[in-house]
Amino acid sequence: MMGTPRLVEIRQNVLKQNDLLARNLRQRFNDAGVMVISLVSSPGAGKTLFLEKTLAALSSQYRVAALVGDLATENDASRLARTQAPVRQITTGTVCHLEAAMVERALEGWNLSDLDFLFVENVGNLVCPSSYDLGENLRLVLMSVTEGEDKPLKYPTIFNSADIAVITKIDLASAVEFDLQAALCSIESVRPGMHVIEVSAKTGDGMEAWYQTLRPHQIKKREITEQAK
Amino acid sequence: MMGTPRLVEIRQNVLKQNDLLARNLRQRFNDAGVMVISLVSSPGAGKTLFLEKTLAALSSQYRVAALVGDLATENDASRLARTQAPVRQITTGTVCHLEAAMVERALEGWNLSDLDFLFVENVGNLVCPSSYDLGENLRLVLMSVTEGEDKPLKYPTIFNSADIAVITKIDLASAVEFDLQAALCSIESVRPGMHVIEVSAKTGDGMEAWYQTLRPHQIKKREITEQAK
Repeated sequence: MMGTPRLVEIRQNVLKQNDLLARNLRQRFNDAGVMVISLVSSPGAGKTLFLEKTLAALSSQYRVAALVGDLATENDASRLARTQAPVRQITTGTVCHLEAAMVERALEGWNLSDLDFLFVENVGNLVCPSSYDLGENLRLVLMSVTEGEDKPLKYPTIFNSADIAVITKIDLASAVEFDLQAALCSIESVRPGMHVIEVSAKTGDGMEAWYQTLRPHQIKKREITEQAK
Repeated sequence: MMGTPRLVEIRQNVLKQNDLLARNLRQRFNDAGVMVISLVSSPGAGKTLFLEKTLAALSSQYRVAALVGDLATENDASRLARTQAPVRQITTGTVCHLEAAMVERALEGWNLSDLDFLFVENVGNLVCPSSYDLGENLRLVLMSVTEGEDKPLKYPTIFNSADIAVITKIDLASAVEFDLQAALCSIESVRPGMHVIEVSAKTGDGMEAWYQTLRPHQIKKREITEQAK
């Protein structure tokens, strides 16, 4: 039923339109010298706490902002706004993923040149966001230790569309008998060589390694900006 | 972009086709006297363990079977097959939810009259499955204590499409500082009066209450079957 040629054709047009918009966004981000990082995961994997801690840690050195997607509620934007970083909520209604057009609209009135890092938290969904390019420079897929080690095998597309896998809530690893080696094998088998970071946003474990991951990007961006002057 | 009239029209046709198929399925299930229960949740909420324990517990008294949906892998079917119940995997590829047509195809060759309970485990996704009727008699939405208390507020549609909310992994409640009252309030505010069950499939806590929930349905079904004789 999902395979009728007409539906597929129109879906492809939607995706194509999204890709064109995403390409424009990426160009705008590059021109403004802002690094854009998106976060995808299933609901409850800990995206918002991870982002809250990241915004707080980076804001002493960098100019950071965030867009957060949800079907309903502005809870996440309210939480993140406590970090003092500019935050906007994108409420998608019944749409199960963010699209480039939503990101573009949410950016209206913001001067991107004023930012070093822009974070985009997608709707909690391990399936649909994988098909939609948002123009980001880096996509993180988060999975928590409570979700089970085989999630990458069951949701390979989202792991293939992401650049870095973040294993969250490692403080709960022993309570849920999480098998780290099995999880790493799952990731490796769907995306060989994928960079993996293990963190607990709650205790702070592993967060420094995550911030270090961002540093080369930021240094490179500054060099490019300097050269352009 | 998602709002172009043509796409919406075709989506509605797909949903309408699904509803017609689901209605036929529901009639078939009723005629056969099998009670069909579907499970939806985000990835990693514990659907499979919950189902594994349920199949094992019910199989001493009832004839039970299961269909399990996933994008990829047959891991869940293999796990559930250990319970000796007939289990079939539905691999959806890139489709982020089960549809009535997939259920219908997966049932081919099974004599439904031989079953008392059929469980259908949907793809892990808190968004898209809400729109697709599978002809089930009862839909459970599962959320684990590790996902946060506000999930019902963020994903109201799936809670509205379900009959029972199951809070899973309650053995982890204190480790993650889960606020049960807040979670119950969230559920109550999107779906007043919704029946809620709290369980740990791992320790067995609350599972008996869940089996008791099924008993009246089974008794009622037997009465109807008896009357029809």
